[in-house]
Amino acid sequence: MIIVGFDPGIATLGYGVIEKDSRNKPVMLDYGIVSTPKEENLAVRLNMLEQGVKQIINKFKPDEIAIEELFFAKNVKTAITVAHARGVVLLTCAKECGKIFEYTPLQIKQALTGYGRADKNQIQQMVKTFLNLKAIPKPDDAADALAVALTHAQTNKLGGLFKI
Amino acid sequence: MIIVGFDPGIATLGYGVIEKDSRNKPVMLDYGIVSTPKEENLAVRLNMLEQGVKQIINKFKPDEIAIEELFFAKNVKTAITVAHARGVVLLTCAKECGKIFEYTPLQIKQALTGYGRADKNQIQQMVKTFLNLKAIPKPDDAADALAVALTHAQTNKLGGLFKI
Repeated sequence: MIIVGFDPGIATLGYGVIEKDSRNKPVMLDYGIVSTPKEENLAVRLNMLEQGVKQIINKFKPDEIAIEELFFAKNVKTAITVAHARGVVLLTCAKECGKIFEYTPLQIKQALTGYGRADKNQIQQMVKTFLNLKAIPKPDDAADALAVALTHAQTNKLGGLFKI
Repeated sequence: MIIVGFDPGIATLGYGVIEKDSRNKPVMLDYGIVSTPKEENLAVRLNMLEQGVKQIINKFKPDEIAIEELFFAKNVKTAITVAHARGVVLLTCAKECGKIFEYTPLQIKQALTGYGRADKNQIQQMVKTFLNLKAIPKPDDAADALAVALTHAQTNKLGGLFKI
């Protein structure tokens, strides 16, 4: 089973692709980012993100997609801009794949470390360990995307959205 | 010239359609809402909004589209959900029409009443007056959408986004 994880953002969207092998062990297939230039207007950047997400889904044909939920308390303006991007990513995933699952940062921390207050470095170390990688994947957005994919692989959440 | 105004929301998206006649006077062509059921998940609701926006644009073939910007200080969670919807609406408008313009609530108030602290009722009265209507359009989201369309008709903002 192939799982793609997305960490939505407007400037940088992270993605991580894993596969569960025959022994149910997760194996890393790919990770990376889709980035959009700051100088472009919001609609053009949303379009670039939509195209990027479509390409990733078409390339890896995931069985299921895991998307990180937004949690912002500090900067409302940033939260609103990122949510524009997340809306487009969510809709694109629902149309292209259908089986999408959402995880909060807290759920990701608990799934990977068993500890809801784990810091970014602890999460990234667990991503490296679980996927048997030589180094922590860079940039952070890609590591975060692998983390949400691993969270889904571990929790085996039932349900999910149907194709729309 | 036909202008469609949108007031984005997740439960209710308002739209208002106006045309400038030969004397440059705005005439109301249509207004209404696209609503989505609370019971549905976010991706399904975003898909319904996308379809609704596409239908409105295909029906009225606007030359230009005006969209209200979000301004939230109180409820971050609501702001984030509405911004998911606004991202989808913005991208759909950019793809289907190309010429889109954004106005803040402050700009709308100033354009219609000359007064940045005008309340909702004053704005709605001006919508009724400018469009020579017998009553204030209902619901509020539709009246707000007509207000942003009128703001665009009045300000004749130059520029706009190109087709993506």
